[in-house]
Amino acid sequence: MSVDKRLHERKFVRTFFTTPTAEQGEDDSAKKLRSAIGLRGMQAPDVWVPDNEDATAPNMRDEGAENIADVVAEDGEEFPGEIHPRVVWHRDSPQTRYKCFQHMLEIADPKNGAVENIDGFVIPEVGDLDDWKKADEFMTIVENEYGLEEGSLAMSVIIESGTAELEMGRLRDEIGKPSNNLERMFLLVDGEVDYTKDMRAITPTGALPEWKELRHNTSRAASAAGLIAVDGPFDDIRDVAGYRQRMTENQAMGQLGIWSLTPGQVVEANKAPLPPEKGYWLIDEDGEEVELAAEDGVQQYVGDKISLEADGDEYHLTVGNDTHVLSHEELQTELVDLTAYVPSLDDIVDSMEEFEAAKEAGKGAIAMTRATTVSIDGVEVDISSDRMWDEATYQALQTPITLFQDVYDNRPDQHDDLAELYGEDVVNRANEVGN
Amino acid sequence: MSVDKRLHERKFVRTFFTTPTAEQGEDDSAKKLRSAIGLRGMQAPDVWVPDNEDATAPNMRDEGAENIADVVAEDGEEFPGEIHPRVVWHRDSPQTRYKCFQHMLEIADPKNGAVENIDGFVIPEVGDLDDWKKADEFMTIVENEYGLEEGSLAMSVIIESGTAELEMGRLRDEIGKPSNNLERMFLLVDGEVDYTKDMRAITPTGALPEWKELRHNTSRAASAAGLIAVDGPFDDIRDVAGYRQRMTENQAMGQLGIWSLTPGQVVEANKAPLPPEKGYWLIDEDGEEVELAAEDGVQQYVGDKISLEADGDEYHLTVGNDTHVLSHEELQTELVDLTAYVPSLDDIVDSMEEFEAAKEAGKGAIAMTRATTVSIDGVEVDISSDRMWDEATYQALQTPITLFQDVYDNRPDQHDDLAELYGEDVVNRANEVGN
Amino acid sequence: MSVDKRLHERKFVRTFFTTPTAEQGEDDSAKKLRSAIGLRGMQAPDVWVPDNEDATAPNMRDEGAENIADVVAEDGEEFPGEIHPRVVWHRDSPQTRYKCFQHMLEIADPKNGAVENIDGFVIPEVGDLDDWKKADEFMTIVENEYGLEEGSLAMSVIIESGTAELEMGRLRDEIGKPSNNLERMFLLVDGEVDYTKDMRAITPTGALPEWKELRHNTSRAASAAGLIAVDGPFDDIRDVAGYRQRMTENQAMGQLGIWSLTPGQVVEANKAPLPPEKGYWLIDEDGEEVELAAEDGVQQYVGDKISLEADGDEYHLTVGNDTHVLSHEELQTELVDLTAYVPSLDDIVDSMEEFEAAKEAGKGAIAMTRATTVSIDGVEVDISSDRMWDEATYQALQTPITLFQDVYDNRPDQHDDLAELYGEDVVNRANEVGN
Repeated sequence: MSVDKRLHERKFVRTFFTTPTAEQGEDDSAKKLRSAIGLRGMQAPDVWVPDNEDATAPNMRDEGAENIADVVAEDGEEFPGEIHPRVVWHRDSPQTRYKCFQHMLEIADPKNGAVENIDGFVIPEVGDLDDWKKADEFMTIVENEYGLEEGSLAMSVIIESGTAELEMGRLRDEIGKPSNNLERMFLLVDGEVDYTKDMRAITPTGALPEWKELRHNTSRAASAAGLIAVDGPFDDIRDVAGYRQRMTENQAMGQLGIWSLTPGQVVEANKAPLPPEKGYWLIDEDGEEVELAAEDGVQQYVGDKISLEADGDEYHLTVGNDTHVLSHEELQTELVDLTAYVPSLDDIVDSMEEFEAAKEAGKGAIAMTRATTVSIDGVEVDISSDRMWDEATYQALQTPITLFQDVYDNRPDQHDDLAELYGEDVVNRANEVGN
Repeated sequence: MSVDKRLHERKFVRTFFTTPTAEQGEDDSAKKLRSAIGLRGMQAPDVWVPDNEDATAPNMRDEGAENIADVVAEDGEEFPGEIHPRVVWHRDSPQTRYKCFQHMLEIADPKNGAVENIDGFVIPEVGDLDDWKKADEFMTIVENEYGLEEGSLAMSVIIESGTAELEMGRLRDEIGKPSNNLERMFLLVDGEVDYTKDMRAITPTGALPEWKELRHNTSRAASAAGLIAVDGPFDDIRDVAGYRQRMTENQAMGQLGIWSLTPGQVVEANKAPLPPEKGYWLIDEDGEEVELAAEDGVQQYVGDKISLEADGDEYHLTVGNDTHVLSHEELQTELVDLTAYVPSLDDIVDSMEEFEAAKEAGKGAIAMTRATTVSIDGVEVDISSDRMWDEATYQALQTPITLFQDVYDNRPDQHDDLAELYGEDVVNRANEVGN
Repeated sequence: MSVDKRLHERKFVRTFFTTPTAEQGEDDSAKKLRSAIGLRGMQAPDVWVPDNEDATAPNMRDEGAENIADVVAEDGEEFPGEIHPRVVWHRDSPQTRYKCFQHMLEIADPKNGAVENIDGFVIPEVGDLDDWKKADEFMTIVENEYGLEEGSLAMSVIIESGTAELEMGRLRDEIGKPSNNLERMFLLVDGEVDYTKDMRAITPTGALPEWKELRHNTSRAASAAGLIAVDGPFDDIRDVAGYRQRMTENQAMGQLGIWSLTPGQVVEANKAPLPPEKGYWLIDEDGEEVELAAEDGVQQYVGDKISLEADGDEYHLTVGNDTHVLSHEELQTELVDLTAYVPSLDDIVDSMEEFEAAKEAGKGAIAMTRATTVSIDGVEVDISSDRMWDEATYQALQTPITLFQDVYDNRPDQHDDLAELYGEDVVNRANEVGN
């Protein structure tokens, strides 16, 4: 196979949803855990994280560990995603690390009946790989103590220090050494708030820096070690557009999933990496891409930053402050440059099937044509562009389909949502193509 | 403690000010050194660098080494910052490295009376860590020769090659090995001019590339090895706004300090990372953030890229070319999104005290509210937004306070400037909070 | 010398041009190879890559290997660039790697008469350095089998996995070890299509992400190991402006060359890194740099985003939506900030000669003045700015000259093009300066 193999069942993790494990002053301190474990369908995350670290007050964490065991013992079997509690840890504190060990012993104790539905643990605040190995060793001891297979508990880490950022790039060299079980590694999750502290970064308003290099480096390390990269929390829960934009950026850098703080964010993050139901056209409006309105196969521009006027054989096209006088052919070329098509799931399946048929007929590369009519200020222009597909293009563009198939295989509780979104026929074809 | 410990007294270095060590044709070739060592207060840098490399002509450098010893022997005791001369070095030239050794022997010779006020040396043009270790070894020999404690002379390096950029990420693995004294490492300083040459980069106008990745990687290496990252020289001395913008960018990526070429730049760079005396509001004016004018608690927008009109129950808000028709509540939401508050030192202390009080009262997270009235085209709108603070937020936003306290503890000569800027009361509270 | 030495004759490679090696259904399956090997002058690349991997159908590759040997045996002697065939390889497939070995044995077999004009091989889809070493070992065996000097065949790799991106940073540590011949390393070429697949990145339109960090890391690794960084293919062959912009970006990050898919792209890429024949002025038009029109030594602004009006002693300068009221001196300062000069080859040679003369006269740094008259809306303003040049500036700005000299030395077939472009006199001076 052409991609470094990932060692876990899931090839993609869209959502990493954290829930406090114990809250003071409630009748039932585990109330939020009980609510979260009941989530199904698009509201249920790919990975659910009972959070016995930052989301839970320090003096409630022993009770939190018990709550995790209780709630997962009761309802874990039915939960559609994986369950990976976050435990306490700190590279600079042996005391916190011992607490981690105690909480893992509690949560995984077979007497509590939860462990068969605990998929692994999330370790925050890791430092260098020697520090990661200490957590790995505790898991190995827990597994042996309780008769579990060595390496069966997955380990995910939060990258929230410059040290961890550097060291994750060396993970590939360490996995497989006889004195560790780092094959258990699963997710690399960025934790930008603590990372900002560790880097001593300051912004005037206190907003988080973008940390693009961190996100790139996390994706790259995940690729090299067969893991999955996940972005940290997006604090402004109201800002759905911002959350979506962050996910679009993340996907373009190989960050496959994102933290979610609410079931509403889970829904957004479960849907965001899936192709849209209907394709649509974009136009570059002086630096910003906006959607064209499709009407009877014509793509209408309704903004006021682009204008077009026909003047005999010539066209006056204005974008922002720049006006070009163009022939019909030059106008077509210009509009091809300004526009782009976002394919639907159906479109992607069509293109893949077309390429597969060509390949069977002995062709290594074919031109895929995309044509439409664009209307600006009432002037309609037919445009058409070709893109060459070869095996590499095919494979690179297959990622959304691989994602779709991974979701379909692992999340039967989302089948209805997918069928409703795309229609049964498209869902079936998307499951067949590329296999 | 939660941040990798730095091994030196200063946790922050805002300013790295270089001065030529010997100039031909002057009555006193050390004239500039004598002038620089007399700087005090905001004009005096955190780290002063008598520059016996690029700033001084090659044939004047032996005299330069003597000048450093003379001037520091005479006035070093009174100088308020640290003193770290830059000596010659090159990864590709054993001859230059031998010269470095000779100059260090001269400058640190106890007979010359300067060494008790020499805090360390700056080594330019380093290559891989084996090269850094050669400089470290010379310092060890110098220390032994002169009866100084091993490791007592700090070593800072200029990162000006791709090799050094790669290797600084491995420093953490090498510090502490028995055959070196790399615990002496202090600053990682980017040198973009020579780095540009090493990378063979070309820009049409000859302007320096931004090298964002280099700056990120330097900050990260500093974080991982307990050091401090400093950005290189900003050549356009007239361009104060550009220098400030560079520092704002740097601080958002964890570069704590910057090179200064003049006392005027030192003043700017000493002040830049400190919070402002008065808080103020920003508004996003179609992609660019501008300051609102505060008048009697109302934030006035005076530009012409945003306009607002009330029309019965509706509001017409235009940003750039986009007009939105909004209800009063939608307008408030939109304005909350467009605006941001830059807190003063006083504001930051207030927020920290408020969180500390909440923590003592047993709360793990509290909402901090920020409210004001925004006025656009005479239409006034009250806005208010909440931000959740938990322990991680508190710690991440503590960095400017830690910086302030580090400055206060180490730079008594700036106490008057700080009191004048912020007032005694705020200064006192800022020194208490978080301890 | 001050830059890590590169181990090959070429210090720069502008162009990496791939050609399919065998096509079905043609009378002569090697037709495209025969056409490409006939290219001369600006149409001929610095490195020509008969592509026996992705550009050639899998079932045609054995024939492709034979075609390479045939065509290079016949016409390789006359070809003005280097010849580095791309062979098959994959980090995850021993079968593909064995095929690579067989194809190299075929192409380099002295009986086929091509090997004296084969400069090396390009290995795609490499993984970690242990994988690179397997390819190196096959080349060593081929060299021994055929009586060639060990290490005489260059090895270039395509970086198209996160693993390879990480590992190239360690190359410097491995080159020179007794059990490999990695001194043969030559080019590090980014392969963004397969890299996108490996990183599982998704963009809505299927466009390639920018992968700026990958490109930076490739340049840095090339700098550290004495190699040359080359960017991957630019698919949209029609889009010459886009190709040029990509090259400008690349050069600013130390990527010296770029892949070319057509002789037209080769011409563009051979010319792009060379300084222009005539210098010109740029003005920053509210965020976008545009060229000023030179007329009798006056630089005319002809756009509509900047306007200027004289009003008695005052000037009203409007940039975008911002109007400033300025004195004449303030106006000059503002225009110096807004403008920049792109020097011609002639200008660069002048400046270098001027600095060299000053250095001989004992000066370490001199101010270079650039002056002109700018005209906006009929108002003419004289502007003048100084830039300090020291040895470091000189060396950093020497890169385009070093490139020019490298081209001149290695590509006699382009002498006529260069003379036509710049004039004999400038060509001669550019060949002398800095030596």
